[in-house]
Amino acid sequence: MSFSMSQASLPVFEIGLSANLDKAEAYAGAKKFEPTVLLQSRLAPDMFALVRQVQVATDQAKNGSARLAGAEAPVYEDNKTTIAQLKARIAKSIAFLKTLDAKQIDASADREITFPLGASNKGHMKGADYLNHFMLPNFYFHITAAHAILRHCGVEIGKRDFLGAIPIRRT
Amino acid sequence: MSFSMSQASLPVFEIGLSANLDKAEAYAGAKKFEPTVLLQSRLAPDMFALVRQVQVATDQAKNGSARLAGAEAPVYEDNKTTIAQLKARIAKSIAFLKTLDAKQIDASADREITFPLGASNKGHMKGADYLNHFMLPNFYFHITAAHAILRHCGVEIGKRDFLGAIPIRRT
Repeated sequence: MSFSMSQASLPVFEIGLSANLDKAEAYAGAKKFEPTVLLQSRLAPDMFALVRQVQVATDQAKNGSARLAGAEAPVYEDNKTTIAQLKARIAKSIAFLKTLDAKQIDASADREITFPLGASNKGHMKGADYLNHFMLPNFYFHITAAHAILRHCGVEIGKRDFLGAIPIRRT
Repeated sequence: MSFSMSQASLPVFEIGLSANLDKAEAYAGAKKFEPTVLLQSRLAPDMFALVRQVQVATDQAKNGSARLAGAEAPVYEDNKTTIAQLKARIAKSIAFLKTLDAKQIDASADREITFPLGASNKGHMKGADYLNHFMLPNFYFHITAAHAILRHCGVEIGKRDFLGAIPIRRT
């Protein structure tokens, strides 16, 4: 095993996006409230609600990886949505990641990547920097916020759910 | 620029640890409350308070990087602490990261890393997997939680503070 940009991106996003929405849905069912209450919950007034955290995480994963691979990412509409629709968006994003050419991603370390920053600005970074210092911190920011919103609301999940199906041997 | 494990770890931790504690301290001063109130705040009863989030983030960075480099990490006591003490811990951790041999880290992709999991268990992962699927998700989990606790408490910080001094050109 060596170390490569595709290895530091594609499987990381696939594992990270396989989130705990089933437990969220089950929790709402057990407590007899509408799951959309969870989707609209947030940690601070100026932070995104759960639904948007998940949407942005999928966007970071698919758009960032597509930019590194020199491919075109599909655009998903940010409609008001249900847990089922969010899960479908995650599945579509993971399926898209599997279509990308790992070799193209590996070859992008020195290439300048240009990407939107807010509505009217652009950011420019070398491919390797873009992965290390923009894609990964942004992705983890949004999936951690999503996880923390669920815990704040009482859903019984923990760090092991957050880490997901990682290649670890426990003794 | 190529892509390497040292590049995906050392500068990421150094930037990520340069956190927003100054703004937290200033906020407590302006609102005339004890900064320790922030340090003891948490997002859920079964999540760590801010002080522990920062301690664990520094531990993930220094212990994980030391394991990859085949070096011994310093141990910092998890005393009750002030913001000044936390800032000192961060500075010491960053200084320690600068002593590590990047080449040793780069050579660790295939080496099995063994690390503690809780009080009595151990995890075993290949070096590259350990960085991609354990060190980085854990590190980002704890610094995002720290950031979200501050925002939940009203401190005026945003994503740009979270990302920190990244190598980006904005147009």
